[in-house]
Amino acid sequence: MTLGIGLLGCGTVGGALATLLADQPDLALRSVAVRSATKARAAAISSELLTTDAQAVVDRDDVDIVVEVIGGIEPAKSLIVSALKAGKPVVTANKELISNCGAELMRVADDAGVDLLFEAAVAGAIPIVRALRASLSGEDISRITGIVNGTTNYILTKMTEDGADYSAALSEAQRLGYAERDPTADVEGFDAGAKAAIMASIAFNADVVAGDVYHEGISSITATDIDFAQRLGHQIKLLAIAEQFLVDGKQSVGVRVHPAMVPNSHPLASVRDSFNAVFVEGAASGELMFYGRGAGGAPTASAVLGDVLEASAALRQGGHRPVSVGPRVPIKPIDDLPSAFYVNLEVTDAAGVLAQVAGALGQHGVSIRTMEQHDLHDVEHDANGGTARLVFITHAAPERNLRETLTAFKGMKVVRGVGSVLRVIGQ
Amino acid sequence: MTLGIGLLGCGTVGGALATLLADQPDLALRSVAVRSATKARAAAISSELLTTDAQAVVDRDDVDIVVEVIGGIEPAKSLIVSALKAGKPVVTANKELISNCGAELMRVADDAGVDLLFEAAVAGAIPIVRALRASLSGEDISRITGIVNGTTNYILTKMTEDGADYSAALSEAQRLGYAERDPTADVEGFDAGAKAAIMASIAFNADVVAGDVYHEGISSITATDIDFAQRLGHQIKLLAIAEQFLVDGKQSVGVRVHPAMVPNSHPLASVRDSFNAVFVEGAASGELMFYGRGAGGAPTASAVLGDVLEASAALRQGGHRPVSVGPRVPIKPIDDLPSAFYVNLEVTDAAGVLAQVAGALGQHGVSIRTMEQHDLHDVEHDANGGTARLVFITHAAPERNLRETLTAFKGMKVVRGVGSVLRVIGQ
Repeated sequence: MTLGIGLLGCGTVGGALATLLADQPDLALRSVAVRSATKARAAAISSELLTTDAQAVVDRDDVDIVVEVIGGIEPAKSLIVSALKAGKPVVTANKELISNCGAELMRVADDAGVDLLFEAAVAGAIPIVRALRASLSGEDISRITGIVNGTTNYILTKMTEDGADYSAALSEAQRLGYAERDPTADVEGFDAGAKAAIMASIAFNADVVAGDVYHEGISSITATDIDFAQRLGHQIKLLAIAEQFLVDGKQSVGVRVHPAMVPNSHPLASVRDSFNAVFVEGAASGELMFYGRGAGGAPTASAVLGDVLEASAALRQGGHRPVSVGPRVPIKPIDDLPSAFYVNLEVTDAAGVLAQVAGALGQHGVSIRTMEQHDLHDVEHDANGGTARLVFITHAAPERNLRETLTAFKGMKVVRGVGSVLRVIGQ
Repeated sequence: MTLGIGLLGCGTVGGALATLLADQPDLALRSVAVRSATKARAAAISSELLTTDAQAVVDRDDVDIVVEVIGGIEPAKSLIVSALKAGKPVVTANKELISNCGAELMRVADDAGVDLLFEAAVAGAIPIVRALRASLSGEDISRITGIVNGTTNYILTKMTEDGADYSAALSEAQRLGYAERDPTADVEGFDAGAKAAIMASIAFNADVVAGDVYHEGISSITATDIDFAQRLGHQIKLLAIAEQFLVDGKQSVGVRVHPAMVPNSHPLASVRDSFNAVFVEGAASGELMFYGRGAGGAPTASAVLGDVLEASAALRQGGHRPVSVGPRVPIKPIDDLPSAFYVNLEVTDAAGVLAQVAGALGQHGVSIRTMEQHDLHDVEHDANGGTARLVFITHAAPERNLRETLTAFKGMKVVRGVGSVLRVIGQ
């Protein structure tokens, strides 16, 4: 029994999918909704398949499964709802939609008794959604740490390996097509944040949306930061971190995207160029990592095809795998989330300074794990004596405590400057 | 609706599973088959659950799903067949059984219309079986390269990082419980081979069994080999490699386990200690890697639990996900499989020697990718002049060609010794 596929949208991913579908004996591409029916398309898409009427694609009797690769909230959302209500499983690669309206769409799918699958919405070809949803559904997951944006990982890799500064690395990424002309969604962490929200929802069975995610991007990372990180045996990576906290049986969730220092011995440290990886910590499974291509036409289409095959197996057998996420849960504000920090201070090179700095940390409940002191020979001595650099990495402490410590440092006479502050993982 | 679990076998994995099942509200452990009903068990297993009659566990009316963690072919096989024929889904962690009788058991499961799931049989907590079976079922996979034996990876890591020799590293692994008193199954590659056969069967939809796998172990790897590999920017790893060849639409498969040099830039190079990882190359997906704990009670039980939850979802909905593997296909003998090689020769340090060596390679269809020549100052000059070491890495060539080249080298007057020969991946 051949099943008919209706494709909504036909950009890079849609074109690659059409090519893959041509090799599937039991699937047939019936119709493709596009904005312009005259634009050139992939060879696998004959022009008779094209239409500008997306709703008509959903409604066709010979379309059994709907694939949505338009992106954005509308009209994608209405089309998906309409397909689900008509009993047609939907496969989507739309991270914006799922990270904002996932819970609502899953309810519609469940009510209709059909599949809503979205592997391609997170980390391209990496089958992390299915791993969290199926293999790890019984696992008590404490934390997910992902490199889920290829653009920023490419930029940080260039800065690290070629000594490029941020703007040169960004230009190179734009030239190669890894970065958009307006790179905001990537470099400020919004793209990674949407993926973090989706992973948190599935892993923690809680309705977490894109707006719950705290963001810091990579545009303020300097070549000096990269140098310091490397000297300390670390790589700087833009991380999406989703954590679950259970206190007296009460669940809360923290979701954030920010650059962080990753020790070279950590599996995420060797994820280079535009590759993605998701590191999962489970109580029984231990540490797991999933690595691969997070973007691009063929890798994303590969994930879509996996979902289409799952949906078609379910259609053939009858039944579907129910998906749902739990209710809204408290989202911990960034101030309450614990991190270890790297802090770089310029201080007066005099007796007792170290004690004052350590005292300020201790007063705010931040303890030091490692510290180095360097004389700064290139800084001129003044009436108060020389300047030294204190570089330290703290144990994990709530961000509020670190922020208050930094405020205290700024008010201290012996502290001449507070340099870069970066979170550190993997301690 | 609570589903009843019957557990066959109660070693490390069974005990860890019982603990995990206690946290699952909709699953209840009904009965546990053991060899000795008086031995102390995990706290989650009350003594009333124990029986020495395994068939009785399968037959109980309140057992809906059977979990087999006895290991070995019999009685595991008969018990599984009996459960499947009674319409009870089976979850097993038994790599020996699946790598020898997988196709037969899948037919029994399919005829009975119930699930036979075996995620835990390959690479412990890493969800590679589900990834290959579901996410990548439509993917054209050319090669799978795995570090799927924790014992040997631990030994090689110790040899690399601490400069330990093989026997010292093996003793340390035995002391820590990573290696058995008789380490043959691990160090000679039989354990990895079973996993390679299972992965090949699923990825290539072909009936590949443990006996199809070519093996070389790590017991002949020396500290000198490790040194040379490191100097050339490589790590030595025991790899399980499964490859698919399609020539004029005719499928053949190669499956082998042997040590190989992995370049430091390859994701498999940073897989340390007893961790496992599986690297998958797909036409559309590109490179993927799955990393995690390949053994141990809790990680393996985590994989079993994922399968139990899949089986219970299918029982609740009715229906199951059909699994099958294709027919037997031609298995390429090791002689026909292409590899790049590292070769270390001692040669007469005289004009024209390089040309003779290169000529022998060329005659046998092996081309050189990189070569280094070193004078050997520690080797005494004799009447024929000094000795030099030639170290080269070849392009990929069938193993037969390399073997014939080595035979030719041994017959050449200018070649004083053929040192280590190691395969090299990732070129």
